[in-house]
Amino acid sequence: MTRIRLQDVAERAGVSIKTVSNVVNGKGVITEATRLRVEEALAALQYRPNVAARHLRQGRSGMIAVALPELNQPYFAEIASELVRAAKARQLTVLLNQTDGAAGSERAISDGIDMPLMDGLIMSPLALTAEDLRHRVDSAPIVLLGEHVGDDSPFPHVAIDNRAAARAATEHLLGLGRDRVAAIGAKRAGATDATPAETAELRLAGYREALEAAGQPWRHELVAEVGDFHRSDGAAAMHRLLDLPDPPDAVFCFNDLLALGALRALRDRGLTAPDDVAVIGIDDVEEGRFATPSLSTVAPDKRGIAETAIDLLLGTGHAPHDSPRDAPRTAIAAHQLIARESTLGPGGPP
Amino acid sequence: MTRIRLQDVAERAGVSIKTVSNVVNGKGVITEATRLRVEEALAALQYRPNVAARHLRQGRSGMIAVALPELNQPYFAEIASELVRAAKARQLTVLLNQTDGAAGSERAISDGIDMPLMDGLIMSPLALTAEDLRHRVDSAPIVLLGEHVGDDSPFPHVAIDNRAAARAATEHLLGLGRDRVAAIGAKRAGATDATPAETAELRLAGYREALEAAGQPWRHELVAEVGDFHRSDGAAAMHRLLDLPDPPDAVFCFNDLLALGALRALRDRGLTAPDDVAVIGIDDVEEGRFATPSLSTVAPDKRGIAETAIDLLLGTGHAPHDSPRDAPRTAIAAHQLIARESTLGPGGPP
Repeated sequence: MTRIRLQDVAERAGVSIKTVSNVVNGKGVITEATRLRVEEALAALQYRPNVAARHLRQGRSGMIAVALPELNQPYFAEIASELVRAAKARQLTVLLNQTDGAAGSERAISDGIDMPLMDGLIMSPLALTAEDLRHRVDSAPIVLLGEHVGDDSPFPHVAIDNRAAARAATEHLLGLGRDRVAAIGAKRAGATDATPAETAELRLAGYREALEAAGQPWRHELVAEVGDFHRSDGAAAMHRLLDLPDPPDAVFCFNDLLALGALRALRDRGLTAPDDVAVIGIDDVEEGRFATPSLSTVAPDKRGIAETAIDLLLGTGHAPHDSPRDAPRTAIAAHQLIARESTLGPGGPP
Repeated sequence: MTRIRLQDVAERAGVSIKTVSNVVNGKGVITEATRLRVEEALAALQYRPNVAARHLRQGRSGMIAVALPELNQPYFAEIASELVRAAKARQLTVLLNQTDGAAGSERAISDGIDMPLMDGLIMSPLALTAEDLRHRVDSAPIVLLGEHVGDDSPFPHVAIDNRAAARAATEHLLGLGRDRVAAIGAKRAGATDATPAETAELRLAGYREALEAAGQPWRHELVAEVGDFHRSDGAAAMHRLLDLPDPPDAVFCFNDLLALGALRALRDRGLTAPDDVAVIGIDDVEEGRFATPSLSTVAPDKRGIAETAIDLLLGTGHAPHDSPRDAPRTAIAAHQLIARESTLGPGGPP
């Protein structure tokens, strides 16, 4: 198929190439009659905008790629939405790709194959490590999100302090006077899902630190492993904990979805939070604010994560290859404990 | 900047162009040592895969674009996830774009400007009508989702029967013996948000039909308008209904998020569903299955919507221009009433 040029369209419509270009790019002042004539010519000739040519001409596409493991996990959906908002404020378009945490998808995207013509990539890798990504064949700038990166990432990287967040959540439960505080979210060996093992390990370490600091024993039976970080995993784990001869009186869940599943399991047993079991999560997804009871949580600064990731991407965009292995910037985003009904009861703050 | 060619990489690495091509495309059998040498050359020369060239050569990119109004609305997130799954089964990659329902975004995407090199586009338009889209300047196939399309869409289109779904939800409440059944979700005049006015109108019509069929009067004060279809809108509307001298004993919410907000408002008043007010939504988002009480709903066949949209897109892909205005296919996806605790009480099915 011969590529239709603006000139072909201009000849058919009887206007200048500049006028066709203005219509295609939504620029300039054009009368309605002229616009319709150009649009008819575009349609008749089956013109397709040659974005690749524009990209080569301008050196940038105005588009950045965002690759996340699971877009129907509320945390990732909210991060995606914040990235879209932050990018828009900088006149950038975001294209999203769901990797399912699969190595093949992550590699194709980071190599620029499944996300062509992008000015940069923001990625939350699960299967690939930062070390794997050293060998990517695309030279566009990249910024990584989350824990599955390793300490010697050659790329800029944004995360929260997971250990401190987990410790704050556990200390909140201990501060209520609970003395059988369980944890839901340790990683079952061989689990392959959308939450990296590193996240679970760091949150488990924070839980352990809080217990030790409070002089409480580590009870292996109170640490519930999960295969995934979804609502159904949280519900199943809560049921197992309630089946113990001496069940917990509080539970720290490694994300909000697990906690929302745990709340549902309590209800199925005729138990209530926080009277029988106090429950707290991490993520502050909107769903938790409206849940019954509303869910206590540790809120990562999602807007800050998005703004920082895009700033780092644009920063690296200026000189991406000068010193790829020297001093990559790692930004630690803020987090904040938000206590609601699931730990404080209906008398607590909304 | 001179474009780096495979030949430059091959010369530097001391291998054939074919070998470089195999490394870049992840094909063929290559020794680890050769792969590393090629990757070093790719990195040193800052090679970027020329996807545009491949696209022109093969005539297709293997990528389809999906444009939805709000990716952090669970319904859209679940539809997006099903589209990614259905596309993957057909060896296609999905790139997602969030339009915020803005005319400019919808136009840029449908014109192929913000979503270049795609083999086709699946879009849930809000600002633009199907009529507006007649004038798009990109000739790639397009399939539309949802209600904001109009009856004479020139493009293939997938939707549920909103009127029938709303009628089923309302009849379920009437069947429980409730005689003051309210509706939450009528559109406030001038509201601009991520749910098209058409959806609200069709669901209101279904509500009205069910009342009429049951011989119940239309009570204007029981129809609560909202500015948006989010949890907070549902909570605020429920509070207003509960402030009436004679409040409702049941409420049909036009989507699940409104219903989840309504449940939260009931709890804030010390009321329970269904004892005081039975509540039902539409969408069957996963959140509703785990809510307390679990949420009755009308479930659209989301997997069916995704499969059908992609089949229509690939179908139109074969001969997209033969008869663009003749007999566009409209597919009506199935829906199903799912009664849970918010209408049946804890004794109901899980």
